[in-house]
Amino acid sequence: MFILHPQLEKDSTLVGDLPLCRVLLANDANYPWLILVPRRNDIREAFQLSAEDQLQLMKESNQVSYLMNRHFGADKMNVAALGNQVPQLHIHHIARYQDDPAWPGPIWGAVVGKTYTEEEKNSRVEVLKKLLGLEN
Amino acid sequence: MFILHPQLEKDSTLVGDLPLCRVLLANDANYPWLILVPRRNDIREAFQLSAEDQLQLMKESNQVSYLMNRHFGADKMNVAALGNQVPQLHIHHIARYQDDPAWPGPIWGAVVGKTYTEEEKNSRVEVLKKLLGLEN
Repeated sequence: MFILHPQLEKDSTLVGDLPLCRVLLANDANYPWLILVPRRNDIREAFQLSAEDQLQLMKESNQVSYLMNRHFGADKMNVAALGNQVPQLHIHHIARYQDDPAWPGPIWGAVVGKTYTEEEKNSRVEVLKKLLGLEN
Repeated sequence: MFILHPQLEKDSTLVGDLPLCRVLLANDANYPWLILVPRRNDIREAFQLSAEDQLQLMKESNQVSYLMNRHFGADKMNVAALGNQVPQLHIHHIARYQDDPAWPGPIWGAVVGKTYTEEEKNSRVEVLKKLLGLEN
């Protein structure tokens, strides 16, 4: 059974599951920000995945990036696998704008996270489910 | 003809060309840090590449990450496509250590860049050429 790292669970809200990845909405309303986590245990780096999973991760990542870019009208997508603090492989997908609070720097550590209201969060999750074809 | 963005050219040293990507050594001796730039003009996001190029980029990125991780004995690889300041698609590959100057944060903007001596830089480029099979 796939186990999500507790820190990722704490910092995000479930959107749904793509064929390989769990899709999480980061709990920071400063940016449209999704996190993809391949549902495989004990993986820290993309190259540790099977060849088949590497291909699937690439497809899901590029598709999520494409759909977010189009839907949110981003000036630039940021796609990053860092994981210095949470070793479980997870890939950030962030829609960036020239007027967002961290532009043009990276978002990590730039400004204090902004809390979604429950209504905002539920609304965003619903929109993202539709966008990514994750509706039940 | 492929044209490298002048800012990337300024901030890096050529290592060589993989089938798709130009491989650049970032001019910052704080970290083992390579930048992969697909040799295609007018591309800002990975999803804009052809399906074939997306696959090749994934293969080259994961292979470079694997080889850097092994050679440099990294605690974690950081792999990121940001591009807020330089729009030409380029993917950072950075070997991170628990005792590096930015750990556990991201490296961008963390500390002032450290200049390689000519000897250190030439030596590192030679090592990387061998590592990546880019020897002439």
